[in-house]
Amino acid sequence: MSGLFITFEGIDGSGKSTQSRLLAGHLEAAGHEVVLTREPGGSPGAEDIRRLLVEGDPGRWSAETEILLFTAARRDHVERLITPALDAGKIVICDRFADSTRVYQGVTRGDLRRTVDTLHTQMIGLEPDLTLIIDMDPDAALERGLARGTGEDRFEDFGAEFQHKLRAGFLGLTKDFHDRTKLIDGTKGAQDVGQHVSAVVDTYLANRT
Amino acid sequence: MSGLFITFEGIDGSGKSTQSRLLAGHLEAAGHEVVLTREPGGSPGAEDIRRLLVEGDPGRWSAETEILLFTAARRDHVERLITPALDAGKIVICDRFADSTRVYQGVTRGDLRRTVDTLHTQMIGLEPDLTLIIDMDPDAALERGLARGTGEDRFEDFGAEFQHKLRAGFLGLTKDFHDRTKLIDGTKGAQDVGQHVSAVVDTYLANRT
Repeated sequence: MSGLFITFEGIDGSGKSTQSRLLAGHLEAAGHEVVLTREPGGSPGAEDIRRLLVEGDPGRWSAETEILLFTAARRDHVERLITPALDAGKIVICDRFADSTRVYQGVTRGDLRRTVDTLHTQMIGLEPDLTLIIDMDPDAALERGLARGTGEDRFEDFGAEFQHKLRAGFLGLTKDFHDRTKLIDGTKGAQDVGQHVSAVVDTYLANRT
Repeated sequence: MSGLFITFEGIDGSGKSTQSRLLAGHLEAAGHEVVLTREPGGSPGAEDIRRLLVEGDPGRWSAETEILLFTAARRDHVERLITPALDAGKIVICDRFADSTRVYQGVTRGDLRRTVDTLHTQMIGLEPDLTLIIDMDPDAALERGLARGTGEDRFEDFGAEFQHKLRAGFLGLTKDFHDRTKLIDGTKGAQDVGQHVSAVVDTYLANRT
């Protein structure tokens, strides 16, 4: 049987990284082989490209160049890590994937959402089997002190209004990709959220043919 | 009047860099403002991406990831250097541009020529006004000791047969892009070739409306 590709999405501070680790532990305890990874980065080449994306002046790249670099990093990550692991029957859990690029670039430059989708179709192709969107009010995320300035989130300089737009963008994914997305309430404690996530994934695994 | 975008193409060792400099000098002496640049690289961001492309193991990137990185670097180069210079009415001379990616990727992986063209149309758009293809027998280029292992030419490991395929690829550009390409015999001395190049460009400038 081929593997399973699960992604976590949501605003910064929603607890994606914690939930990725909790789910990995849960699935490993159940006897699955799990590969835990994240974007941007995840493979040696993609990590090198990640450094170009997250270091330096926020205006270092245009939105278009940024999309090309994200897509290059993702192509490497998919080729070198994700696809081989799925082919070996493993469960791959990825903290952010193409949906983050769709939401961030779509919010910063609405006209670029189509560019992101076209490049993804042409150069990546792979979509997750299951995407868990951890939903949380941006103000609550900030209060929990979890918001950091890393990854695609150096946009956080744009302020609270921007974070609210991002949240709306992530919620919109549940309409665009209804079949593979599950909305998870991220406001409860990490253990409670983790139990919800585990239950969703266990159900998915039990029902897949 | 908007500027003029001239590119040099050809196999490694054909004398493109020398001819770029000679032409820049010729046009500056005639009173033109000239920007001399090269690919991959040409702007600070594109130079950073160039390092990812030319350093490390030759198998570091797949052909697809490589095309995405070349396109990202080109987008930055065009946005930050080439387009502003053209808008200011300058003559931009570029040692290699998208045609190199078309030829190299087309020769290494024939099925990727369409990918290169699609990405170029979607993310770059700009084509040169005039492309000077310096043609030379690969064996003669090698004898002249000009072949180096830089830029898109780390493929030179593929050997003499590969270089002959590249030459055929560059010659093919004169059919694909008949309107903007000029074939230049690169076998004569640099000064003679330079006079030919200068004459072609002077004629182009005299005739453009």
